[in-house]
Amino acid sequence: MKGKHVQKTEKNPLHAIFGARSVAFVGASNNPTTMGTTQMLLTLRGGFKGPVIPVHPREKTVLGQKAYARLTDIPQDVDLAVLIVPTRAALDVVKDAIAKGIKHLVITTAGFRETGAEGRALEKELKRITSEAGVRFVGPNCIGVLNTATGLNTTFQPYRHGPGPLGLASQSGTFITQTLDLLKRWGIGLSKGISIGNATNIDLADALEFFAEDPATKAVGLYIEGIDEGRRFLEAAKHCTAIKPVVALYAGGSEGGARAGASHTGAMAGPDKLYDGMFKQAGIIRAPTLADLYQWGWALATQPVPRGRNIAILTHSGGPATTMADATTRYGLHLPRFHGELLERIRALIPKTGSAANPIDLTFSMDPKLLAETLPELLLSSDEIDGLLIHGIQGSSFFEDLKEVAGNLLQMEVDQVISLTEHVVQPLLKMPERFGKPILTSSFFDRRDNLVRLLQDNFIPVFDMPERSVAAMAAMVQYAQVQKRNAL
Amino acid sequence: MKGKHVQKTEKNPLHAIFGARSVAFVGASNNPTTMGTTQMLLTLRGGFKGPVIPVHPREKTVLGQKAYARLTDIPQDVDLAVLIVPTRAALDVVKDAIAKGIKHLVITTAGFRETGAEGRALEKELKRITSEAGVRFVGPNCIGVLNTATGLNTTFQPYRHGPGPLGLASQSGTFITQTLDLLKRWGIGLSKGISIGNATNIDLADALEFFAEDPATKAVGLYIEGIDEGRRFLEAAKHCTAIKPVVALYAGGSEGGARAGASHTGAMAGPDKLYDGMFKQAGIIRAPTLADLYQWGWALATQPVPRGRNIAILTHSGGPATTMADATTRYGLHLPRFHGELLERIRALIPKTGSAANPIDLTFSMDPKLLAETLPELLLSSDEIDGLLIHGIQGSSFFEDLKEVAGNLLQMEVDQVISLTEHVVQPLLKMPERFGKPILTSSFFDRRDNLVRLLQDNFIPVFDMPERSVAAMAAMVQYAQVQKRNAL
Repeated sequence: MKGKHVQKTEKNPLHAIFGARSVAFVGASNNPTTMGTTQMLLTLRGGFKGPVIPVHPREKTVLGQKAYARLTDIPQDVDLAVLIVPTRAALDVVKDAIAKGIKHLVITTAGFRETGAEGRALEKELKRITSEAGVRFVGPNCIGVLNTATGLNTTFQPYRHGPGPLGLASQSGTFITQTLDLLKRWGIGLSKGISIGNATNIDLADALEFFAEDPATKAVGLYIEGIDEGRRFLEAAKHCTAIKPVVALYAGGSEGGARAGASHTGAMAGPDKLYDGMFKQAGIIRAPTLADLYQWGWALATQPVPRGRNIAILTHSGGPATTMADATTRYGLHLPRFHGELLERIRALIPKTGSAANPIDLTFSMDPKLLAETLPELLLSSDEIDGLLIHGIQGSSFFEDLKEVAGNLLQMEVDQVISLTEHVVQPLLKMPERFGKPILTSSFFDRRDNLVRLLQDNFIPVFDMPERSVAAMAAMVQYAQVQKRNAL
Repeated sequence: MKGKHVQKTEKNPLHAIFGARSVAFVGASNNPTTMGTTQMLLTLRGGFKGPVIPVHPREKTVLGQKAYARLTDIPQDVDLAVLIVPTRAALDVVKDAIAKGIKHLVITTAGFRETGAEGRALEKELKRITSEAGVRFVGPNCIGVLNTATGLNTTFQPYRHGPGPLGLASQSGTFITQTLDLLKRWGIGLSKGISIGNATNIDLADALEFFAEDPATKAVGLYIEGIDEGRRFLEAAKHCTAIKPVVALYAGGSEGGARAGASHTGAMAGPDKLYDGMFKQAGIIRAPTLADLYQWGWALATQPVPRGRNIAILTHSGGPATTMADATTRYGLHLPRFHGELLERIRALIPKTGSAANPIDLTFSMDPKLLAETLPELLLSSDEIDGLLIHGIQGSSFFEDLKEVAGNLLQMEVDQVISLTEHVVQPLLKMPERFGKPILTSSFFDRRDNLVRLLQDNFIPVFDMPERSVAAMAAMVQYAQVQKRNAL
């Protein structure tokens, strides 16, 4: 019956938690190897504007901030308390928080229902005292929350990328913590992240309800090991997918996954097919792997939804053209053959060794404008095309590599060429909005390349493998169908 | 009937091509934007020890080397000529090569059968004159060859990673050129690469025959758009897979893929099922995506083949544990529950919040020795386990990130801690050989991290997603079955 105490009229507690303007860290110290220290450090140094207050039984200052022995000793108001204390101390600290009038907590402390009977009893007691006091909390056994707009970051990995439109709610703290560096390398920007832990109070349904309302979040990614309250989740998910796309990775459906999940967050996993059916009913796009969760979520968060499944592929090399074309068939997309005027116009633009069919293969044309402006414009203007996949946009890395290898053997105005490449790609950045159609790209080069950076920072996804953009486009077509179903 | 002129007793021409000690580049100039210039530059500056000779109609020197107007003007012997000339000039240059007594060519020049009737006629003529002269060549319409041991590199991307045991033969030049930077980031080292192009003379079967004989190559990756001589390919593949693993990506099996492939290399694609059957018969592991081709090939090239499908998973966080466990089921691996003495010994080692079942989840234990030495040794010693998957080995990146964020707030001897992490991971590097069992790992951190680098440079694969190592392990189990079938 968990969660039933929440009235629909009550404001979702995640607004207060993500919007916290003062945070206390109970369990931070000056020892760099403890979790609490790292967590406090990241908020303190991550751009958070409000007070960051350490609570420590002995230290006078922690990380340069005046420390208090208990929460009740803090003179000013505290919006949010983060608990990183031993299991045995957790309930006393919660009681202090209640005494201090703190209404919102993040309980990182583990050792509750996921560890057996004793932990289950402790969790029940935690539930009772917080419920009586009207305190809402994330966790226990979680990493907590990340708000990229305010710098609130109770994870233990710095967030160094710009804010972006993807929101994440996860039953694994790792997937909103340890992956932050990877997500930056992939050019994926987060709005907010929440590690749900044992979801004793705030659960995935609350997160979905919050993200549906959060203007900074355009699409939601969920990592799920098991859902206790199926009906509540389903309702929240239906509500959310009617407003914005939701992608979910469910890993509890197999014997191995269920066993691992149970010992991780104590989640009750269910058969794969059951979850599959629930996701379909809720309009949730199911991601088969973690990479898909992030990448499909990013595509859906940044790009307009395609109106149909007719896709154009544009590239300068045959291998990516062929693998992408092959993947479109496997993912259920259509690759219409161009004909009539469109075909003639393409033919007139590309080299003789190239191919004007769909895919368009420029071969090794050195005219970047063709790949990044003229052809995308031509294709997206056509009613025959609902979305565009481009492979191979590349700027500085080729020239820098060449200059490095060449040394004084070649005269090259590398800087000039590089700034020219940025100029060439500018019109492409506006095309998704201009045409109301999605553009997804892939490149074998990373953010060291100026154009990869430029595209990613303007929210045009650049994936590392050509087939990844095909898979993400198929996920977008799936969401278009959810929208159509909802409109009936 | 192509290829039938090759006698089985003849030495495979790729030995001479990869072993070339002098190379002429016809079409290199001092213009950095032409392909020929880049190709010559990379061999010249890539560590190649022999003479690199430019051929140019007007220039006296090219890239600092004395240039000759024609191949026939070169006074010294030339082992290999690389042709990057306009289509119309190609045959004349080939005739010059024959006159000069050059027996091996790489013909990068495109515009042959892949472009229509005129190109087909030209290709027929190319075939006739080379066949009469006993000249063997790679191409046309290809990027050529890469030998990481000698520095011969006729692609146009520098090879900056150390040599490794994976050999690649590809109907796309892009997949041995544009991906070199990515492969370095993934820690994947190549022995040799060959872009087969139109395969007019040297084809995939020749490449397989060569790689079977090449001691530097421990596994072979193939990218295929279509095979003209199925029987010849099948025989070469059977021969090769009896000696070393072969992984293939076939992209011509769908309507879209076949269309794209035909205009790329003029390859005759066939139905997906036909190729699937051929691969099974040949003992080739089929990779569904480009990432799989590289990653499965890398796992097979570097790790001992597992004796069975019983896999242990070891990690420090629940999310990766659960997604990996779930993936093992999907990929047909077994995740045996530990019991008896093994279980007791694991329990005694890990934190109370951790999980001793399979997967082993250390939760956030800060003891790297447990993850990188004690537990791997315990697991690999057990007869219950055929292979080990580890997620989350991480060294310098965490400490460097923390120090960067902390600035002067924390006292940390980061350099000392980092060198300690390298010490801790040393025993793991020897375990695959010591136990004759494969170890595959994954990490959300890249080669910026000292331990990711150390593992990769010691040929223990580190993939970026936890499920990737599961997929690669399943590919290895597939190859074990090929070996068993061959042994019958």
